[in-house]
Amino acid sequence: MRVAFIGLGNMGKPMSRNLVRAGHQVTGFDLVPAAGAYLLAQGGQVADSAVAAAAGADVVISMLPTSEHVRDLYFGRGALVAHIAPGTLLIDSSTISISVTRELASEVRKNGCAMIDAPVSGGTLGAEAGTLTFMVGGEATDLERARPLLEAMGKNIVHAGSNGAGQTAKICNNMLSGICMIGTTEALALGIANGLDPKILSDIMRTSSGTNFALQRLNPYPGVMPEVPSSRDYQGGFRTDFQLKDMLLAVQLANESKTLATLGSVACNLFSIHCDNGYAALDYSSIMLMMDKALAAAASRTK
Amino acid sequence: MRVAFIGLGNMGKPMSRNLVRAGHQVTGFDLVPAAGAYLLAQGGQVADSAVAAAAGADVVISMLPTSEHVRDLYFGRGALVAHIAPGTLLIDSSTISISVTRELASEVRKNGCAMIDAPVSGGTLGAEAGTLTFMVGGEATDLERARPLLEAMGKNIVHAGSNGAGQTAKICNNMLSGICMIGTTEALALGIANGLDPKILSDIMRTSSGTNFALQRLNPYPGVMPEVPSSRDYQGGFRTDFQLKDMLLAVQLANESKTLATLGSVACNLFSIHCDNGYAALDYSSIMLMMDKALAAAASRTK
Amino acid sequence: MRVAFIGLGNMGKPMSRNLVRAGHQVTGFDLVPAAGAYLLAQGGQVADSAVAAAAGADVVISMLPTSEHVRDLYFGRGALVAHIAPGTLLIDSSTISISVTRELASEVRKNGCAMIDAPVSGGTLGAEAGTLTFMVGGEATDLERARPLLEAMGKNIVHAGSNGAGQTAKICNNMLSGICMIGTTEALALGIANGLDPKILSDIMRTSSGTNFALQRLNPYPGVMPEVPSSRDYQGGFRTDFQLKDMLLAVQLANESKTLATLGSVACNLFSIHCDNGYAALDYSSIMLMMDKALAAAASRTK
Amino acid sequence: MRVAFIGLGNMGKPMSRNLVRAGHQVTGFDLVPAAGAYLLAQGGQVADSAVAAAAGADVVISMLPTSEHVRDLYFGRGALVAHIAPGTLLIDSSTISISVTRELASEVRKNGCAMIDAPVSGGTLGAEAGTLTFMVGGEATDLERARPLLEAMGKNIVHAGSNGAGQTAKICNNMLSGICMIGTTEALALGIANGLDPKILSDIMRTSSGTNFALQRLNPYPGVMPEVPSSRDYQGGFRTDFQLKDMLLAVQLANESKTLATLGSVACNLFSIHCDNGYAALDYSSIMLMMDKALAAAASRTK
Repeated sequence: MRVAFIGLGNMGKPMSRNLVRAGHQVTGFDLVPAAGAYLLAQGGQVADSAVAAAAGADVVISMLPTSEHVRDLYFGRGALVAHIAPGTLLIDSSTISISVTRELASEVRKNGCAMIDAPVSGGTLGAEAGTLTFMVGGEATDLERARPLLEAMGKNIVHAGSNGAGQTAKICNNMLSGICMIGTTEALALGIANGLDPKILSDIMRTSSGTNFALQRLNPYPGVMPEVPSSRDYQGGFRTDFQLKDMLLAVQLANESKTLATLGSVACNLFSIHCDNGYAALDYSSIMLMMDKALAAAASRTK
Repeated sequence: MRVAFIGLGNMGKPMSRNLVRAGHQVTGFDLVPAAGAYLLAQGGQVADSAVAAAAGADVVISMLPTSEHVRDLYFGRGALVAHIAPGTLLIDSSTISISVTRELASEVRKNGCAMIDAPVSGGTLGAEAGTLTFMVGGEATDLERARPLLEAMGKNIVHAGSNGAGQTAKICNNMLSGICMIGTTEALALGIANGLDPKILSDIMRTSSGTNFALQRLNPYPGVMPEVPSSRDYQGGFRTDFQLKDMLLAVQLANESKTLATLGSVACNLFSIHCDNGYAALDYSSIMLMMDKALAAAASRTK
Repeated sequence: MRVAFIGLGNMGKPMSRNLVRAGHQVTGFDLVPAAGAYLLAQGGQVADSAVAAAAGADVVISMLPTSEHVRDLYFGRGALVAHIAPGTLLIDSSTISISVTRELASEVRKNGCAMIDAPVSGGTLGAEAGTLTFMVGGEATDLERARPLLEAMGKNIVHAGSNGAGQTAKICNNMLSGICMIGTTEALALGIANGLDPKILSDIMRTSSGTNFALQRLNPYPGVMPEVPSSRDYQGGFRTDFQLKDMLLAVQLANESKTLATLGSVACNLFSIHCDNGYAALDYSSIMLMMDKALAAAASRTK
Repeated sequence: MRVAFIGLGNMGKPMSRNLVRAGHQVTGFDLVPAAGAYLLAQGGQVADSAVAAAAGADVVISMLPTSEHVRDLYFGRGALVAHIAPGTLLIDSSTISISVTRELASEVRKNGCAMIDAPVSGGTLGAEAGTLTFMVGGEATDLERARPLLEAMGKNIVHAGSNGAGQTAKICNNMLSGICMIGTTEALALGIANGLDPKILSDIMRTSSGTNFALQRLNPYPGVMPEVPSSRDYQGGFRTDFQLKDMLLAVQLANESKTLATLGSVACNLFSIHCDNGYAALDYSSIMLMMDKALAAAASRTK
């Protein structure tokens, strides 16, 4: 298929490359011109505007940072929807607001095109390895058209429901993972302050009712798991400010839909405080550092 | 071994029976006289006081509701420590305050006896099946003396550290499981309010970074997992007021040790509100009902 | 002045009547036809559409429940802006979203009219007595045009800043009053649970650093102040669901502007739980009932 | 009266001096020997032990940092109760745990002496000026004996109830003032982020339902009130770690008495994070700095 890929950042680069490797004809575009060099070197094409990239494309994939970027691409300055052929399929893999997602899909349909939301989980490692999970919102027939492309970039494709459902599933999940991560650091700090070894306590909770992703795959305490961000100064992984962005979307949605998100809101504020303290670029498991400071302060008071 | 078993409630009954089955000589006592009938029928003995039950015993096991009950047994009205032979091993499987645990262990040692704390996870089902997890605090040699008994009642025996470490591990774990459970219900409610199917969303999150015990084994939404409390009106399982009791111990410990437990505190308050609303006897996954009420209220406003 | 008054509910009725009494020529409209009877009886006119009410008016005042209602009036089904003469001044006294307020003011300006946001505090009692506070956002010259009308309905007119500033001030204030109210009920419950008399404790805190509006004017504990809602089963006053609505706006704004509102978010969720439990129509000081339930539960456990 | 004054810190110095000025015969003691110099210079006596200071005293006043210090003075290493004459009146003005307070009062009574708890509000300025508020728990007759001394040090003496009631009232008040302070900084930050002037917003909220001590006497935003800590880099006033200590006592008491303190717990954790970030010695209104960081971060993202 001829694919336009808009947004060649840390995620877009390996994703577009995997499409090329699977035999698709990929033309990329990024607002930062240098971002295209990688795709070129991998055998793709690069255009100097989104409209040029999408000329003649069967499918347009977007992977952009915020709701505003996506809206701008399709209807604002980019005005892509006005320039693409009817029948083109748009796949938005960005993580953005549900209401913007729905609004865009509805507008796109009026222009005779189709759109699915297909945000991902798995991070840059998953993008590199082609093992991303895609959570898809939209018509089943549109998902089937997209499937060969999604399978070139990921290994788990889930149809969550109609337009917006992919985004909804994504941010529900990320709100929950944020809550569980902070909960895990609180539990670890409580144990450590009372003399427990973090590795032993982690093992106990991992095999008990406290078990969760943080204990199974991403232990936030340095040294418990050798291969994870916490064991390399929280470098790599999923940046805390990205986690915060997703939680802000979740809390906003809870606000709009009048559901309770008490822990979600508090967790969101704690990640915000953590970012403000200078840790925005570290993996989100670095929220452990906030608990560590309290441990250190308590220890120094005891002395 | 000759074992005195103090506290023949929902947990104590199957635990003491499993000791009998393993060939130990068990004499039980409970403040409620009728509680002993089951043990008698299973081949154990019943005494009419804790002191009588412990006469000649190698090991005393206690399984009681609160710190006050345990203190009362060993040093208060029960005054058991004054009546047992030096060298007796005391195993407290109750879930109680860490400071009381340490204080008791230290007093017991002055009387020439040894004590370990060995609270359990696994609930009444685990007690019945003999598959409990024991989280043990105390001397390694005392744990070795206790091991044959613990193995008759459970299948996972973890040495968490010195006296109090078993209790600490237990309440760290239960604080975390409480946080993850509420977080899971918040995420489910958020998805449902926005049109997602609870089963599909549960599947997505269970295989993503939001995964945790609630999604893996105890889904709080009715009908997602047929065998769990949520699918039988939240009957059975782990009572919400017991969950609350453990979280109160955790928050108290965090307060004493000056560690952060922000989510832990909020979760504790939410379970407290839930109990006050009349749900104390239901499984703790029934906190989903709090989110459901918000969903129903939001839906009725939309109409 | 000729004034169109849109929205003749509990607030709109006394406000429009006070304009009539001050000698203005008032034509009202409400989607509920019967709502106009009161204004007619007080010497005003009633029209059968917003457009008809606004025909020939110098000023249009709107007092409506939500952002959607206000948008609908001016640009949606009501389409009022398309039908009014250039130079008409619009005064919106509803409490609605800041972004909608700003968007409307900007659109109105394109149509050659002017708009100020002028939400109120003081409730139905203040509306009756003509003692409302108006928090005004918009141009100073527009405020001066509006002043004679505002002074007929209130006694405290504050210019908070440009368009949206009135709304912002209003919801900042209401978020804070909600936090202080819940904080006050927590402090009272804590004291009562430990044997203090609510009146004595209220007096101590009212004259100490804990003092706030709830202690000064709206004590939430029954019997401490004879004239307030808490002393008449929480009837009258400011409905909890209205308080919740304002807090949801505040939390949404905090989310959009990436500021911290940790206590604000938790307080918002607590009011939501309280509404869901059936107390939406009671004064917001009825959140005391949530604390009372905990007190009663604790007391019954002690027995 | 002959008075022993134990604890000559920032509060004890001016308090003991005011007793001297009122004509009482004061002998002081502090673990830090140099602390006595000031009292000597003011006309008091200094002893080299608590027991020596209390020899022949009618009344012993203690003003110490923690529960442990007070217990140590009367029953531990100090063992003061064993050395004083029956009938001596003990006044503890420290802010400590309610349960310790009650336990000490009961033990003291067994020794034939009387004790009241009389913690203060008003800070070092109030201690200097002799305008402290004393919140008193204990027998009315004991309060009457103490009254001449309390009136020499303060101007507002409130009988809160039986032993422990003074402490309870104090920490209920301080939990509430902490909640209101954080709420005020959240509301100010929300307004500022949306273009409001902090002074105008403060004025609006101070005269509306958001009013509280922070807005009336201790505005946390620099420059709004010239004379308060926020306008001098948060120097002076009431240290954040002292505020934290009182909130920890409040949350502990709520935990023990099973009352809800949701906002109290979250506020306590936020003050803890703030202290851990290096602001422990600043006035507690410096929690505004936490909100400022979020404002600055949000502003830098917008650029």
